[in-house]
Amino acid sequence: MERHFDKELVSLNEKLIRMAALAEEMIRISVKVLVFREASPIEEVNRREKDVNNLQVEIDEDIVALIARMQPVAADLRFLIAASKINGELERIADQAINICENTVFLLKYPQLKPLVDMPIMADIVQRMVRDSLDAYVQRDTAKAQEVLNTDDKVDAFKDQIFRELLTYMMSDPQTIQRALSLILIARNLERIADHSTNIAEEVIYMVQGRDVRHHHEEKQRE
Amino acid sequence: MERHFDKELVSLNEKLIRMAALAEEMIRISVKVLVFREASPIEEVNRREKDVNNLQVEIDEDIVALIARMQPVAADLRFLIAASKINGELERIADQAINICENTVFLLKYPQLKPLVDMPIMADIVQRMVRDSLDAYVQRDTAKAQEVLNTDDKVDAFKDQIFRELLTYMMSDPQTIQRALSLILIARNLERIADHSTNIAEEVIYMVQGRDVRHHHEEKQRE
Repeated sequence: MERHFDKELVSLNEKLIRMAALAEEMIRISVKVLVFREASPIEEVNRREKDVNNLQVEIDEDIVALIARMQPVAADLRFLIAASKINGELERIADQAINICENTVFLLKYPQLKPLVDMPIMADIVQRMVRDSLDAYVQRDTAKAQEVLNTDDKVDAFKDQIFRELLTYMMSDPQTIQRALSLILIARNLERIADHSTNIAEEVIYMVQGRDVRHHHEEKQRE
Repeated sequence: MERHFDKELVSLNEKLIRMAALAEEMIRISVKVLVFREASPIEEVNRREKDVNNLQVEIDEDIVALIARMQPVAADLRFLIAASKINGELERIADQAINICENTVFLLKYPQLKPLVDMPIMADIVQRMVRDSLDAYVQRDTAKAQEVLNTDDKVDAFKDQIFRELLTYMMSDPQTIQRALSLILIARNLERIADHSTNIAEEVIYMVQGRDVRHHHEEKQRE
């Protein structure tokens, strides 16, 4: 039997899905700008960021209104508070896409340091994490959330590899240092997007199982 | 007249204050390790992180219980949802202190690149932002929250200055590149702590005034 509360959630979930799709597109476009060295699509990224910011405010207001009106039981409350946190994570993912654009604008002023091979692959993985973490939330699917957590290791490996490669450029030719640094920062922007996706995945597991994976995951990462 | 709801908040606020104090101390100790090049206090940082993680779980559970039991009106709800977000920000601040320790452990393996002058000053400012943003929350003081937002420019200026100075080391001697990079990452860790504090300050203003400063601040920063 579908409960009244679940119906109320449909529009909230739709907004979160729209927000995630916008954030994902912002990543896709910003990495395209980086790889193909053509700046004009940055405008599209900026336009989408405004949409994301407006949606964030709207979603937060919806959540407060829903709780006040429905007076939900604890399990449903957890779902709504998770929605509010996920809302914040998505907005930060969008911010990181903006940061990628900013670092890229600097890079486009100079000749290309090297053709980018790993970076677009890393970006694809990261975009997928965003999508999967949101799917996990909407479907309350902890197995999918766990997959997102597992993928994070792959992203870290890419970041380390990119970091090391760029270090060799920097060491052999000081002329490359500033460009290499910008690329390192972009790899970190992508890594942070992955981190925000794992935050979403952890919220999902916590919400569904009432079990706190947040710190177990962190501790595992450090080992 | 003090309302019943406000009394219920006292213990929640006390926990958040304790958490902020722990996070602040973690920053203080990790920067001390960096400046005085003596690794043993890192254990204290790790111990406090466990406390922070436990407190985070406890606070999240308190919030759900409070909403379920009190069925608060919209304004009080906003306060509780803000508490839940601030809880997450404080935990991430503690994480950044751990990251500072990790970058420092690498640095301690090598001779000192240069005596650190700006970094401890930047760290002091950042610690103060953590404390002030939490005070602003507890006292519902938007003027104090606005001060935190204003201080962020100072932190960015420090980060840029540190970044530029380290770049000159890297350009003139490739032997310094790895150490300079680690110091750049530490400056970014501090900058991220400042960002989390501004997130807290923005939540406070939103909660008190119902006005969304979050994106205005971001847009201002970019100009």
